Amino acid sequence: MSEAALAEEAAALDAADGLAAKRAEFDLDDEVVYLDGNSLGALPRGVAGRLSDVVGREWGRLGIRSWEESGWWTAPERVGDRIGRLIGAAPGQVVAGDSTSVNVFKAVVAAVRLTDTGSRDEVLVDAATFPTDGYIARSAARMTGCRIRAVDAADMAREAGPRTAVALVNHVDYRTGRLHDLPGTTAALRAAGAHTVWDLCHSAGALPVRLDADGADFAVGCTYKYLNGGPGAPAFLYVRRALQDRFDSPLPGWNSHADPFAMDPAYAPAAGAVRGRVGTPEILSLLALDAALDVWDGVGLAAVRAKSLALTDFFLRCVEAYVPEGRVASVTPEAHAERGSQVSLRYGAGAGEVMAELIRRGVVGDHRRPDVLRFGFTPLYTRFADAERAARVLGEVIEAREAARR
Amino acid sequence: MSEAALAEEAAALDAADGLAAKRAEFDLDDEVVYLDGNSLGALPRGVAGRLSDVVGREWGRLGIRSWEESGWWTAPERVGDRIGRLIGAAPGQVVAGDSTSVNVFKAVVAAVRLTDTGSRDEVLVDAATFPTDGYIARSAARMTGCRIRAVDAADMAREAGPRTAVALVNHVDYRTGRLHDLPGTTAALRAAGAHTVWDLCHSAGALPVRLDADGADFAVGCTYKYLNGGPGAPAFLYVRRALQDRFDSPLPGWNSHADPFAMDPAYAPAAGAVRGRVGTPEILSLLALDAALDVWDGVGLAAVRAKSLALTDFFLRCVEAYVPEGRVASVTPEAHAERGSQVSLRYGAGAGEVMAELIRRGVVGDHRRPDVLRFGFTPLYTRFADAERAARVLGEVIEAREAARR
Repeated sequence: MSEAALAEEAAALDAADGLAAKRAEFDLDDEVVYLDGNSLGALPRGVAGRLSDVVGREWGRLGIRSWEESGWWTAPERVGDRIGRLIGAAPGQVVAGDSTSVNVFKAVVAAVRLTDTGSRDEVLVDAATFPTDGYIARSAARMTGCRIRAVDAADMAREAGPRTAVALVNHVDYRTGRLHDLPGTTAALRAAGAHTVWDLCHSAGALPVRLDADGADFAVGCTYKYLNGGPGAPAFLYVRRALQDRFDSPLPGWNSHADPFAMDPAYAPAAGAVRGRVGTPEILSLLALDAALDVWDGVGLAAVRAKSLALTDFFLRCVEAYVPEGRVASVTPEAHAERGSQVSLRYGAGAGEVMAELIRRGVVGDHRRPDVLRFGFTPLYTRFADAERAARVLGEVIEAREAARR
Repeated sequence: MSEAALAEEAAALDAADGLAAKRAEFDLDDEVVYLDGNSLGALPRGVAGRLSDVVGREWGRLGIRSWEESGWWTAPERVGDRIGRLIGAAPGQVVAGDSTSVNVFKAVVAAVRLTDTGSRDEVLVDAATFPTDGYIARSAARMTGCRIRAVDAADMAREAGPRTAVALVNHVDYRTGRLHDLPGTTAALRAAGAHTVWDLCHSAGALPVRLDADGADFAVGCTYKYLNGGPGAPAFLYVRRALQDRFDSPLPGWNSHADPFAMDPAYAPAAGAVRGRVGTPEILSLLALDAALDVWDGVGLAAVRAKSLALTDFFLRCVEAYVPEGRVASVTPEAHAERGSQVSLRYGAGAGEVMAELIRRGVVGDHRRPDVLRFGFTPLYTRFADAERAARVLGEVIEAREAARR
């Protein structure tokens, strides 16, 4: 297809896009195609004003009273419930706070402690996992007397055995964008007597997740990608309601105490999701996230998913049209059922330079060593015209490199 | 002394106060006497503008590039070094991030791991500790095969024995304001072959701390009290340089990796203080703290300490003058060498009501169950006139309660 035809198609798709109006709720530079929302989500317009009020009035004027009067103390649960709606968790099962790494530690240790003492001592970890999950799972295994085994996410169901205590799986692979089978893997692990910990970093806010319905045991994830919570925004922890009474945290900080202000030397864990808290939450980051979540009001994940797939389909078609044949290969699955909300293209030597040049030309994706170009599609603010331009500029950059060599 | 004489003395002390000009750097309500900086420090004026730039320009415009261009990635070490100057730590030994609870976990586990395998299995914990330290130390002990023993902070040196791996001590007791002997306890623990973890929550920014000079092994602390970093601002972790190569973190997240963006499935710890990091830092809270630390430019802790002691001395004299005899008793030590930067008064039944009434009358301290009234003195913004007014209002409130009963 010609450039004109693809540009026309993009315009038509944007005109028909039911989510198009959402883009106005973000503070975006219209000169830039921002396809890195899978690394750092764009800035929702409501954040600056909210944060200014939190600093100036809540901290500056009300001070210490804000822990009660401004709802600071209960913000981790309240924000957690807002995230819960987006990942299929009924209220009371999610808390926001700490980093994903710290939450992986809580979840994996707690999952091991749910098993009968000594009978299950194996922690399975996704072989292609985002590295921190693997590092932390290894530490959790070491500290609970377990061994760890790396297994392809797709093979978890088959590999789980009578000694498996828990499997830690990425819902969407950060590098390839492959979407793993959460319902099937969860059911298989449960049938094998093991628990699951899902890392939703690349799926929360990108596609429908149904933790309750699919019977997931634990889940963690960050909020600075598709949830646009800001740089290093607090992560979240989901603990299935049925397991909460037996949730035995390795980080039983005072915020998880049944009566924190009793200052009791003896620890007595709170009931519910609160038990997943640790220390005093970083309120400025947490309330920026709270404000950022406003963009989800009235948005359904089905619509987000439909647009995400349409965007990545369209981008792949544009890449095929604009990039000389054989120069890039998608490592993201063709099948919709196996695709997250990004497209990763393998380029070979010079991938880093290609991405740097794309960024200079106003198309922001990122590069993952050695040879992957990542393009994230965030349906709340990415336009089909952005997808078309990104592919077009990619083609131009690659052609210019080849021309320079000739 | 008469009210007029004390008020006059307060005015003279304020006029002669070399730190008096610092108060203008905080956004304070002049109608209120804020003596709760030992719980939540006041708002430094520079925070709002800096945060607005971080959100609007660094996140909104530069986006993902800010991890490098705005120095986000290295902020934990950079801010850590700024805190380091205030606690007697040469650069490269402090990182900011996570909560105090999480940092206690890292430090206690790492300290146990420094000992010869199996030969030392006792964790000593300050019997009057802020509760979260005790809860977390217990978890750390459980996960490293140690037992825990509660010991008065003053007796740590005597109680440490050949099986003691580590002692976790509060530098200043949160409830009584008692300052413990850091140099002496550290030396005694070291002589006993054990390591120390100091909790500096109530001393960092309140008085001189000399971690390097006194040979402390590990220290943790929060930054939202005397360091004015904002609600739930990131905590810090100090690891003495000589121990850094053997620092074996129980939370080896990707931010502590020697080459985080290599995305290496194998963990290889970074050198130096960076090894104490875990996951992605909560940048908005961290950079608010960074801005808040500007108020310390040009301030020496010796001057802070001198004013702190003068303030608490003066407050105690005013209490003696204004509060009917026998109604309150200070649980904060008289001796300067044993006093932090707060005064805690025991009142008996109704302490909570007394504090509520004080707050209604514009004097903000806090109440710790069952019977303690806490007044924190933060030399950068508390005036002698504030101390005088607080004591005067306290006397009025107590007299009014008694009059109402008669």
